[in-house]
Amino acid sequence: MDASYKPHDRMAELLADELAQVNDLIRDRMASEHAPRIPEVTAHLVGAGGKRLRPMLTLAAARLCGYDGPYHVHLAATVEFIHTATLLHDDVVDESKQRRGRPTANLLWDNKSSVLVGDYLFARSFQLMTETDNIRVLRILSNAAATIAEGEVLQLTAAQDLATDEGIYLKVVRGKTAALFSAATEVGGVIAGASEDVIKALFDYGDALGIAFQIVDDLLDYQGVSAATGKNIGDDFRERKLTLPVIKAVALANTEERGFWERTIEKGIQNDGDLETALTLLNAHGTLEATKQDALSWADRAKAALEQLPDHEVRTMLRDLADYVVERIS
Amino acid sequence: MDASYKPHDRMAELLADELAQVNDLIRDRMASEHAPRIPEVTAHLVGAGGKRLRPMLTLAAARLCGYDGPYHVHLAATVEFIHTATLLHDDVVDESKQRRGRPTANLLWDNKSSVLVGDYLFARSFQLMTETDNIRVLRILSNAAATIAEGEVLQLTAAQDLATDEGIYLKVVRGKTAALFSAATEVGGVIAGASEDVIKALFDYGDALGIAFQIVDDLLDYQGVSAATGKNIGDDFRERKLTLPVIKAVALANTEERGFWERTIEKGIQNDGDLETALTLLNAHGTLEATKQDALSWADRAKAALEQLPDHEVRTMLRDLADYVVERIS
Repeated sequence: MDASYKPHDRMAELLADELAQVNDLIRDRMASEHAPRIPEVTAHLVGAGGKRLRPMLTLAAARLCGYDGPYHVHLAATVEFIHTATLLHDDVVDESKQRRGRPTANLLWDNKSSVLVGDYLFARSFQLMTETDNIRVLRILSNAAATIAEGEVLQLTAAQDLATDEGIYLKVVRGKTAALFSAATEVGGVIAGASEDVIKALFDYGDALGIAFQIVDDLLDYQGVSAATGKNIGDDFRERKLTLPVIKAVALANTEERGFWERTIEKGIQNDGDLETALTLLNAHGTLEATKQDALSWADRAKAALEQLPDHEVRTMLRDLADYVVERIS
Repeated sequence: MDASYKPHDRMAELLADELAQVNDLIRDRMASEHAPRIPEVTAHLVGAGGKRLRPMLTLAAARLCGYDGPYHVHLAATVEFIHTATLLHDDVVDESKQRRGRPTANLLWDNKSSVLVGDYLFARSFQLMTETDNIRVLRILSNAAATIAEGEVLQLTAAQDLATDEGIYLKVVRGKTAALFSAATEVGGVIAGASEDVIKALFDYGDALGIAFQIVDDLLDYQGVSAATGKNIGDDFRERKLTLPVIKAVALANTEERGFWERTIEKGIQNDGDLETALTLLNAHGTLEATKQDALSWADRAKAALEQLPDHEVRTMLRDLADYVVERIS
């Protein structure tokens, strides 16, 4: 296999058969005999070319632990259903109009459909899990679902509050992103009957990878290019979201700078040129660079966790994946 | 015990210790270390004096089957969490401003909080279930959650469509109301290790009771008094909800009457006096009376299911409860 492929694509190639089974299962289970609106809305999102990163992590972890099926497929589909349900509800909460370069479901249909179809997918994900007959994976994934919702609520109240510090940011990020990554890798090990050490390492890898992933996302919002992220530069600033680069800049702000952040983020009074001023402050305090270093450090932690795992081609791919996640900012 | 008590109150007295344990567990599990918004929103709803009818059904079914704990308490709390999550999301979908005589959470906080706190309670309910270590109750309750969401989506698309017939209405009612009633009674039997015949009878009782309950609710919307229901007469008409009295009237409508329903329900063009005209049509075709007979018939089915169960003071209370549900319209 050509090492110049993106690690994500190499993994998809290695796991192609199982990914196809996951896709079949998702298509099968998103159907509803009675309510055709459900598969319409779900297909719009599931078919929109997401990278299937989370379900792939479950399949990869199970493969690494020598599992030969069939329930890793159910768990991978479960993880994707939880993710999709979360996206549907997120877009309602954020009043988003675009996702993956296409209009959001809440825009194409309405908020009601997004809320209720999201609920349906949550319920379907739990039905799927019960088919594994493994109560431990049910615990892990229901814990993850609770942590995700808790992180989203915390973000709601913390987002526009300048008192939000790096500790709170990390809790939000663990909730909104890392909880599902770590559950995805952990259940792959659990279903394979791996040792507790291996399961712990898989959890730690997913946790650190998810945190790195989200920090990169938040950093690219201030320095990425629109084509790479599908978002516009400064979306988080305009939406008054307190992410790591700004949290670090607020901590270093003088009185005048603090006034700027209070006006633009806390009060939401933004004028022409404010985004440029924000970027100037982030650069002046070196917080974009510091945020980048944090992301790289979490990617290193993810790779360190892999050291606890047996040597395996999947392990190499997971290591490369950790590098790839931070490559966009390196 | 004085038989003149309402059956609901007699049951609450008999199950007082376990209901107190359910309330403690609910209070304990609705907490969130990180996001104080969660218990605020939940307490507003959970504390609003709901009748705890659904969790009581679980406790009653377990008691009837001779179970002596402790997991029926977890299941009863699970059922109440699912119910509460559903109410939070319903009020967002329906844009409701009042619930149980108090302002709704979406009005007091915002839609975002209601969506996300509902998600949190769903996840918490699944966490609670896993503590029972009983995969069958997990299946029953995740199936119920999927049926609820499916019923809500179906209602969304069927509500303003005059093609909605009694068959579709029954599917919606099974989803939005009866699925949780029947799951509540069924899991009480399952956790107690009851025979399949008994479990089936408990399911049938909950299903029929839930359907009777919802038909009564829909009927009272046209003929109740505001104080008894906490709703105003004609709310469903104004919200263009096709419920059983109207579905029956549409089926019997002449051309002119059909035009009236098309304008008021399908197109949503309503003028002064339209509610009075609607009531006149419902009475002219006898559909309020026919709807009442349907409710009574479902209450009879609920009581018939009880015949399969062992003689027990709880069985008598469940029979009285079925009578009580339809008493408001008798």
